[in-house]
Amino acid sequence: MKIRDAVDSDWPAIWGFLQPIVAAGDTYCWPPDTSEDAARKWWMGKPGGRVLVAVDNGAVVGTAELHPNQPAAGSHVANAGSWCHRPQLAGVSDVPLAQRVLEVAAEDGYAAMQFNAVVETNEHAIRLWESLGFTILATVPEAFRHPDRGLVGLHIMHRFLG
Amino acid sequence: MKIRDAVDSDWPAIWGFLQPIVAAGDTYCWPPDTSEDAARKWWMGKPGGRVLVAVDNGAVVGTAELHPNQPAAGSHVANAGSWCHRPQLAGVSDVPLAQRVLEVAAEDGYAAMQFNAVVETNEHAIRLWESLGFTILATVPEAFRHPDRGLVGLHIMHRFLG
Repeated sequence: MKIRDAVDSDWPAIWGFLQPIVAAGDTYCWPPDTSEDAARKWWMGKPGGRVLVAVDNGAVVGTAELHPNQPAAGSHVANAGSWCHRPQLAGVSDVPLAQRVLEVAAEDGYAAMQFNAVVETNEHAIRLWESLGFTILATVPEAFRHPDRGLVGLHIMHRFLG
Repeated sequence: MKIRDAVDSDWPAIWGFLQPIVAAGDTYCWPPDTSEDAARKWWMGKPGGRVLVAVDNGAVVGTAELHPNQPAAGSHVANAGSWCHRPQLAGVSDVPLAQRVLEVAAEDGYAAMQFNAVVETNEHAIRLWESLGFTILATVPEAFRHPDRGLVGLHIMHRFLG
């Protein structure tokens, strides 16, 4: 697997696996019916943002995005998101992409990374990031309306970089 | 003191006391040199946002803004900010505005309110919101570059409504 910065022509492939994840509505606070245009702007167009893709055998199978979690006096802490092509996930680990996001954030001068809204039922993501040194700082109670499980908490996760 | 929804013509008065607070750079993650245009868009133009003003003897002496902290499945939790005219604060309590923000949020159907970035040296704000039932869920370490005190933490504060 190769991980590189995304280019505009990667978008259709990204949207191909991102759309079903958004539509499922169980891991992110995006409207399940988010349009392709809105998703593209959200994912590729954040101020100060940087987008990566994971490419396996020529196919884009994952993407990650990082940007300052706060502007100005808070801009040394990164926020990030990452998604992988679920059906392909069986054969492709999402660990290298997550590791690369942390490396890139450190290279770009961020001092830490913070996630604001990790759905507490998203055990795969929580395990992944904990294995890479993140801790759960707090859980905002009942902050996410899960399509199957009702109100569940959102974890705030954090680790220093460098 | 009267508290009401803001109208466009309130903006110059709001900017009159907001600009020095932003320029001080010790309580919010806004760039200290934020332009009036950018500030207005930020304060008055958030998706799903609602802006209040506190009016005392005909003068706008405070403003507060609330909006969904997350979209979609997280939109039942409000985020809010409030600012008061500092020189006037000696004579004017900021408690009624803060109380009204909580009432408005409950009336508008929010289930809780969450602050993502309360600078831990902003003791006035922390005391104010704790007195109104908020708790500190967590402190993100070294997440704010304070102009005088170096790296300080950002509190995440929360309370349920209604």
